[in-house]
Amino acid sequence: MFKVDLKKKILDANEQCAFENTKLLAGKKVFCLNMISSPGSGKTTILAKTITNLKAKLKIAVIEGDIKTDIDTQKIKTTGAPAVQINTHGACHLSAEQITAGLHNLPLDKLDVVIIENVGNLVCPTDFELGENAKLAVLSVAEGDDKPAKYPAIFSKSKALLINKMDLLKVVDFDLERVKADARRLNPGLEIFPISAKTGEGMQNWYDWLLDQAGQNPR
Amino acid sequence: MFKVDLKKKILDANEQCAFENTKLLAGKKVFCLNMISSPGSGKTTILAKTITNLKAKLKIAVIEGDIKTDIDTQKIKTTGAPAVQINTHGACHLSAEQITAGLHNLPLDKLDVVIIENVGNLVCPTDFELGENAKLAVLSVAEGDDKPAKYPAIFSKSKALLINKMDLLKVVDFDLERVKADARRLNPGLEIFPISAKTGEGMQNWYDWLLDQAGQNPR
Repeated sequence: MFKVDLKKKILDANEQCAFENTKLLAGKKVFCLNMISSPGSGKTTILAKTITNLKAKLKIAVIEGDIKTDIDTQKIKTTGAPAVQINTHGACHLSAEQITAGLHNLPLDKLDVVIIENVGNLVCPTDFELGENAKLAVLSVAEGDDKPAKYPAIFSKSKALLINKMDLLKVVDFDLERVKADARRLNPGLEIFPISAKTGEGMQNWYDWLLDQAGQNPR
Repeated sequence: MFKVDLKKKILDANEQCAFENTKLLAGKKVFCLNMISSPGSGKTTILAKTITNLKAKLKIAVIEGDIKTDIDTQKIKTTGAPAVQINTHGACHLSAEQITAGLHNLPLDKLDVVIIENVGNLVCPTDFELGENAKLAVLSVAEGDDKPAKYPAIFSKSKALLINKMDLLKVVDFDLERVKADARRLNPGLEIFPISAKTGEGMQNWYDWLLDQAGQNPR
């Protein structure tokens, strides 16, 4: 029987496009992160705080993926950073082709970093390379400490993990050491930063890491 | 050009199978809910509390969808309720065919209600009918109050919405009235129950609704 592996064909086409994005970003010496989490982990708040606090050191732009609204892009624009909205109209992840369009609407010559805020979904975006230098996972303590065990792919493929909403740690059941151990079992080199974008706790460690990553590719 | 709408074909095959599940459940007079939310909204905790507190009135079984683990099924089994594990091995939603297999492993003649706990994902499971009588959305207050606006499909298609983790309302930024208004704009008939599975707050209203729904189809 003739059988077409459709998922593989779709991913191959996406990866070819992702490769073109990687070349474009490298040519402009722009460091790119693909930020992936469940809905409501605090991605946009983290980004707004990061852009504001690193304004003097890093020129950051954001590509916002959202099914329907531009709520997050409006929040990012209040920081003064360039932000491009991509609406997926029901789709559960961003594709490399959408990122190509987004990149062409950003002033890449003036940027150090592009952060892609993917659609809120801990599963599907993990399969689609966008041309980024690294994936950045975000988990909030309110989501529970079994998530690396239950959704291993994103924890395996990320370069760093932000554990957000640490200000809620005392009022939720969340074993931070279990999460660290489970995530590092999947990915021994994973950098883990417990943070609270709301209170500022731990944010400097994440800033230092981002500055270091971006600095490895100076303009 | 000859064009095949693959998404439509996959959904058609799934819907045929879902229709068979609906017939099987109706024949056994079992009421079935398809529970959908982001990871970490508290679905399993809600189910365990519900099963325990309604034990004398309703015979409930659970079909647990999970990418990789059986953590949630083990939690449900501590209540004494029948539970079937389905691992999707990376897939982001349950399919009707998987539910058929699950139903054949449950003592349907002895049950009043089957609740399907879908894979934690606010987007993809919404597109796949499983043969359920109704969808049940769960949102926790820790996820933020912009979720009906940003992920409208699940709020449009559900019969009821549980707003969980009300015990955290004072320590997070969550406008309950905004969520109610946004969700009812999408779905005027939506039943909304603010609850805390942890403290028990509001749970009786949800129990009464479930008893009422199940009672419309008495065995």
